[in-house]
Parts: sequence; C-alpha cells; structure tokens
Amino acid sequence: MAHDSRATPEPSEGPIRVILWGLGAMGKLMARLVLSDPDLVLAGAVSRRVRDGLAGPVDIAHIAGLNRPTGVMASATLPEAVARSGGARVVLHATGSFVREVSGEIEACLEHDLNVVTIAEEMAFPWVAAPDLADQLDRLARSHGRTILGTGVNPGFILDTLIAFLTVAIGHVELINAKRVNDLSPYGPTVMRTQGVGLSPDEFRRGVEEGAVVGHVGFPESMHLIAKALGVKLSSIEQSREPIISSVRRETPHVLVQPGYVAGCRHSARGYLDGRVFIELDHPQQVRPEAEGIETGDFIRIEGYPSVSFRTGPELPGGIATAATAVNMVRPVALSGPGLLTMLDFPLPHGSARRQSEVAVNG
Amino acid sequence: MAHDSRATPEPSEGPIRVILWGLGAMGKLMARLVLSDPDLVLAGAVSRRVRDGLAGPVDIAHIAGLNRPTGVMASATLPEAVARSGGARVVLHATGSFVREVSGEIEACLEHDLNVVTIAEEMAFPWVAAPDLADQLDRLARSHGRTILGTGVNPGFILDTLIAFLTVAIGHVELINAKRVNDLSPYGPTVMRTQGVGLSPDEFRRGVEEGAVVGHVGFPESMHLIAKALGVKLSSIEQSREPIISSVRRETPHVLVQPGYVAGCRHSARGYLDGRVFIELDHPQQVRPEAEGIETGDFIRIEGYPSVSFRTGPELPGGIATAATAVNMVRPVALSGPGLLTMLDFPLPHGSARRQSEVAVNG
Repeated sequence: MAHDSRATPEPSEGPIRVILWGLGAMGKLMARLVLSDPDLVLAGAVSRRVRDGLAGPVDIAHIAGLNRPTGVMASATLPEAVARSGGARVVLHATGSFVREVSGEIEACLEHDLNVVTIAEEMAFPWVAAPDLADQLDRLARSHGRTILGTGVNPGFILDTLIAFLTVAIGHVELINAKRVNDLSPYGPTVMRTQGVGLSPDEFRRGVEEGAVVGHVGFPESMHLIAKALGVKLSSIEQSREPIISSVRRETPHVLVQPGYVAGCRHSARGYLDGRVFIELDHPQQVRPEAEGIETGDFIRIEGYPSVSFRTGPELPGGIATAATAVNMVRPVALSGPGLLTMLDFPLPHGSARRQSEVAVNG
Repeated sequence: MAHDSRATPEPSEGPIRVILWGLGAMGKLMARLVLSDPDLVLAGAVSRRVRDGLAGPVDIAHIAGLNRPTGVMASATLPEAVARSGGARVVLHATGSFVREVSGEIEACLEHDLNVVTIAEEMAFPWVAAPDLADQLDRLARSHGRTILGTGVNPGFILDTLIAFLTVAIGHVELINAKRVNDLSPYGPTVMRTQGVGLSPDEFRRGVEEGAVVGHVGFPESMHLIAKALGVKLSSIEQSREPIISSVRRETPHVLVQPGYVAGCRHSARGYLDGRVFIELDHPQQVRPEAEGIETGDFIRIEGYPSVSFRTGPELPGGIATAATAVNMVRPVALSGPGLLTMLDFPLPHGSARRQSEVAVNG
C-alpha cells in the first residue's frame, strides 16, 4: 500500500487495516474518515462499479470522489480486495438496508476471517427482521472467532443507544418519547421516492399500502435495543406512516412540492409493555422544513424518577453521523470477543480527536 | 434477611446482594432505589451514626428516613455488615469525595472480597488526585479478583462519559465546550459553605485562597476521562473559581443572599492539547438562579465534523441522578473483570424499567 508500508499490526495495537465494501455516498464519507485516521489504514475496497465493468482497476479516489489519489485500488470482488489488502481485519460494509439483502456478503467476510461493521439498518438488531439468519450469522461469527456489528446514526445511536445510555442517570424509567425531525433536502431521487416526497396525499397512501413508500427503516430494531438495555421485553410494536402535506411550495434540486402535495413522511412507532405504551418514537422526514417554520432536531423525553428532557438542535446530520459511528466502531469490533453483537455490548463507544481535519472535511 | 430469603445467587444471574456504606442524603436515595429493584437485594448497611453510638442496632429505614421497615439492620462496621449480609457482592459507597479520604474504606471492602461502586468524585478517575493510591487500589482489586468503579452524575456522566459517548457519531472532534448550570437551593449548610453562598465578594475570594470555598470536585477527572476516550493526552488543566454576585435578594431555607453578595460559585476549567484549549467545562452553581432569569440546564457543544449541540432543560438533578448512576452500575461492576475501572470500561451503561416506582418515589 503506497500510503502505509508497515507490516500487519499486532491484534491489540497499531493501526487496523480496513476494507470498504460499497463506495456510494456512505462509503465515500467512510473512506475520508479512514484516510484521516492515524489508527486505521484504508487497505482496500469492493465496488459494484468495478464488478459491473463500469470502472477498471482504479484508485478508489476516482470512485469515491476524493481529491487526491489514495494508493488503494478498488476491487471487483471481496477475495480480490482481501488478497491486495496486506492483512485487513475489518470490513466497513455499506451496500444495503435489510438483513436478507446483506447476510450473504457478511458471511463472505466471515469466511475470510474478517470482522464486519455494517450500516444495514436492520442489522442494528437483526433478530427482529430475520431471527434465523441472525442466529446463523452469530454461529458463523463465533466459529471464525470474528465479530459482526450493525450500527449507524439511526438505528444505532440517536433513537436507541443514546436513549439507553441516558437512562443510566435515571432511577426508574416509566416512558420514553423521542422524536427526530430532520431535513431531507440534501438527499437524491431514491430517498425522495421511498419517503413519498412530491406525491399527492392519495398517491402517498397507495405507496404506503404497496410498499413503495417505506419511511424509516429501523424502528423495531431501535425499540428492541432500548428494551433489552432496560431489562424488559416489548409485547408488540405498532407503526404508522402519514403524509406531511405542505401548505407552501417547497423545492430542492431533486423535487418540487406544490401546496397540498407531500413534503415527506411522518413515520412513528409505539412499543407496548404490559398493555401500555412504553416507547414512542417519531420521525417526521421532509424537504425544506424551514419553509413552514418547523425546527429540526432530536428530542428525547424520558418520564420517570427523575423525568428528563434532552435535545439537539439542529438534528445530528444523518450521513456523516452514520459514517462516523461506523468508522468509530472499527477498533472496538476488531478487539471484541466473537459473535453477532449490538451497540449495547461494547465498552463505551466514542469518537477520536486524532484524525486530521483536512482529510475529513475537504475533497 | 426478612425481605429476601433466597440463597446467594450464582455470580452471573439472579439478584445481587448489596451493602450500603454511608446513609447520608445519597445513601438514602440509593437505599430506595435498591429496595425498588427486583434484581438487587439490600443486604446491609454501614452507618457512622451506629458506629458513633448515636443509634443502636436499628432498621436502616430509621436512619435513611424510609417510610416502612426494610428488615435490614444498620451496622457499626463493615465486618459486622458483611457477616449479616447473607453473601453480599457489592458495596455502594457514599462517605466522601477524595481518594485519600476513601481509599482505606475501599481497601477494607476488597479485603472482604467485595466489589465497590463509590460516588467519591475523585474516584471517577483517581489517577489524577492520587496516582500511587490508584495503582495500589488497582493491584489490590486484581489480587482479590474484584472491581472498583467511581461514578456519579458529575463527574461520571453529564460532563464526561456522556460527552465521550456523543462523539461516537462525530467524524473528528476539534473542541469540546460544556456547561452545567444548576440550582443549589435544595442543598444544606455544607454545600452553602463550600460554594461560598452568602459571603461578600471579598470573603469569597479569601475563601478560595484558603481552600474553604471549593466549588466543584471533579473537573480534572472529567477532562482526563474525555481525553482518554478520544485517544489524546492533555498537557495541562487550568481552573478558576469566580463569585456569582447577586443583584437581587435570594433566599432559601438555609441561606439569605443580599444584593451585592455571593449567590454561588462559577467554577470553570480549560484542558490544553498541543498548546490550544481542547476542553472547556463550566459549572456555575448558585441558589435561586430564576431570581435573575437564569435558565438551568446541561449544555454540550462539540466542534468538529460535524459540529453538534446538545442540551437538557432543566439540568439533570444532581442528587437522584448520582444515586441512580451508582445503583445502575452495581450489576455491571459485579459481572466485570477485576481492577480499578472507569465508566469507559463497561458495556453500555443503562438504567432499568424493572423497578417499582412507588418505592423509588415515595417515602
């Protein structure tokens, strides 16, 4: 590797060599963070664009839009990336959202004795969406002595593990109510479609019924994470997806919303315990919330002894916060005992003050 | 024990038997939380009042001000409490603030093969105040296969481990600025004296010089906790204690502050990294802040990529939050590997939704 010629480090110290799997918007952000980190080495990447023949063997800078060469070539397949990696230990995985969609790729990583940090939303607590696959991944991870973790900003942090951690200072937890109000304006056509932005209210409702309007992926996962931390088991979870109908014209580079049309999706969920609501999560996502004076932010209210309110303002930005959370978990995952784990299982997760800010911010 | 006749549980499951050491304001809050928790058993208590002959062998309800008998007798000494405890595994320790003041009591716990959770502020990161004693405690803990943890709301949570945890969603941390603005009105004469409340500005300055006005105990500990989490080492820490001079009359049951006199202490600290300020912590503590329209709360600002702001409102209440944090760490400490640990070393700390709210709130 042009950027780091040191030998493979000892397991518990020295920089950790990382392979990126997926070079989309998230992979690009992760690449920058890994490159800026003296404790990590970007040792390879797997890109669908190389596999599909859309790019030859190129420096990942070309695919990830970085402003200078990294010396790391993108590969078409995992075995190819592993062979070039000089002893990678962790795969940062960012190719999909659903357990069934990503489990094969995660198994391939384990077969190469690699640990995995994935931002697939359902993997934050995969026993909800696919308990059999989750158990299978856990067994395979243990048999290879490797670790799998699903994480990200949400699920993985703001509406689950942060809430769980806040309760350490609370004597008795009665009710959790949390809301993430964000701005979808930076996102592209895929997000506009899955959130129903620009549709008429009727089209939106039809989209929800038919599964085209998805809303947020991760509420059941977040709720089970919180409940597990607090020592209880939810009896059921209800979800609803309602259109956020704009009363004004809202426009982004990717979508135009006329008054009376849908500016976004208000996805909310209620988790029940002993016949009463115990966790309420609310995630209204829309373009240009400021057009109607809507304040964005993350709002957490815990009722109990004592009751407390916490908030951010504006919201923790979804893209970079997801990439950062994943990159920050690389070292804990590399050093952890084996198995399919969750964010509850690691010594206090944290960031780094050791990264070079130029690499992180520019490019 | 009258309230629980089960045999001593296996190490990794079943309720954990706990001895309280110290039955002051904090011990009383902890007693209530332990009594309300199906996963803990209040198995004994050590009280200075019993030792000093101010109380005979009495139910701890009488000392801790609980509204019904607990069936647990307060003891004069630790050996006595251990003998009565039916196999206690953890001591919840609340007798002092400073390492030199509490290390002997913690050693006594270890000699009885007990784990310790202490709210002594300096024990949150005891290598600052007394590195030799800290190393000695660590060695003793390891030789007995037991764990020591210092925790509380501050230090231990709001201005250190919460900040460290928030950075997991941040790509690069440049500067940390946090402020805890609280209301001292509920506190008694000791706190009024150590914060200089009611003094003239000149008396306050003399009190700071002579060490009678202490302000907050824990800033260096919090700063080293944050720095350790973020992978850096601070080169120096500066602290200052300034009088908060009231422009109006402020009164509590314990103190009267005339205009021009001191309503509290603004204690702040700056931690340096590579010649620049990296962590700024500010803790203005005063009686009746609302008398001058001052909003209480915990305010955390992290500058970096991305920059984020986080706040509570009002502040997380100091007393119950400290008791809750300590009680919530009993099980993790009982199940942990040995040594003198910090809040950074445990699987994600969290609270409980299993406690009975009546016991916790009433009494």
